[in-house]
Amino acid sequence: MSSGGGYVYGYSADREAYLKRLRRIEGQVRGLQRMVEEDRYCIDILTQVSAATKALHAVALGLLEQHLGHCVAEATAAGGREADDKVTEATDAIARLLQS
Amino acid sequence: MSSGGGYVYGYSADREAYLKRLRRIEGQVRGLQRMVEEDRYCIDILTQVSAATKALHAVALGLLEQHLGHCVAEATAAGGREADDKVTEATDAIARLLQS
Amino acid sequence: MSSGGGYVYGYSADREAYLKRLRRIEGQVRGLQRMVEEDRYCIDILTQVSAATKALHAVALGLLEQHLGHCVAEATAAGGREADDKVTEATDAIARLLQS
Amino acid sequence: MSSGGGYVYGYSADREAYLKRLRRIEGQVRGLQRMVEEDRYCIDILTQVSAATKALHAVALGLLEQHLGHCVAEATAAGGREADDKVTEATDAIARLLQS
Repeated sequence: MSSGGGYVYGYSADREAYLKRLRRIEGQVRGLQRMVEEDRYCIDILTQVSAATKALHAVALGLLEQHLGHCVAEATAAGGREADDKVTEATDAIARLLQS
Repeated sequence: MSSGGGYVYGYSADREAYLKRLRRIEGQVRGLQRMVEEDRYCIDILTQVSAATKALHAVALGLLEQHLGHCVAEATAAGGREADDKVTEATDAIARLLQS
Repeated sequence: MSSGGGYVYGYSADREAYLKRLRRIEGQVRGLQRMVEEDRYCIDILTQVSAATKALHAVALGLLEQHLGHCVAEATAAGGREADDKVTEATDAIARLLQS
Repeated sequence: MSSGGGYVYGYSADREAYLKRLRRIEGQVRGLQRMVEEDRYCIDILTQVSAATKALHAVALGLLEQHLGHCVAEATAAGGREADDKVTEATDAIARLLQS
């Protein structure tokens, strides 16, 4: 929930775990900067880029799973237009991940 | 080349530009942490993850283009086993990007 | 539904549209074979591979949207273990698409 | 070039192997049509879509490796504007694969 109170998203219970993973990804991106500064071999940098991208996608899949199990589930239980909208919104987000 | 002297990779001339792009990506990843801390809506976080991934892939493609035009080009001009190895190495790096 | 009657999946109403799209993709893959037979330029073949992959992903996203709006929605409305399983199953399928 | 004589692209020596792989992918896409006709479970169809996409990407990576080792290698050995163009063209093709 926002600190003021109210709605709690699906991922909130795991907030600390997500923050930890994102801090590790931030470290990977800083590692990439060091590699560029030290003129490291291109392929090694590309390998590290793939690792950071994979880690970002893993975070995205975790958030998505909780989103489908909470926000989308509540909307589809309620039914109607809002349910369709939530499903379309989630699918659009997946499409963006696929194209990124 | 490393500041001490020696080999200069294809991307070295653009080092500052790459560092700037990577610092911006680091900022995006810190932005993701803030979004999680503030309990922002999952879909908005996923959109930002896609943006960071896209930016990482763009950096990778830039590095790859310069790698192909320099390191791989030099190896294939020399020919032989080393040429094949460099081409395979680059292809493997592209495969890792595709699967990340 | 299975031909014997019974359950109808989310995508069944659009079956003809999906078949049409899949036949077009089959045509693209046969086009790729012709290109290879005719020794067409590698980059043109790669462009056609990207088009076929994009079309396959578009079919997948359509199926996924209907799966989330029907099968997963029914499971989450019922709740419990089955709901969690369906959400995990869908997320795993998205993960496979991302890595393909 | 075509079998009538002249230029042979890097992949030509493996033409039969590529045709065999593409025919198998064509079979996978026809299998997808059968699955849709038989109202098979969405997730099973998505799994098969991922398999077909993965197979297409594997073909693309094979073609790309041979393209880099032949066409691009020849151009970069000759140097000049054409070399740069070939490298950019290959990178653009990789970018399209990444976004597909």
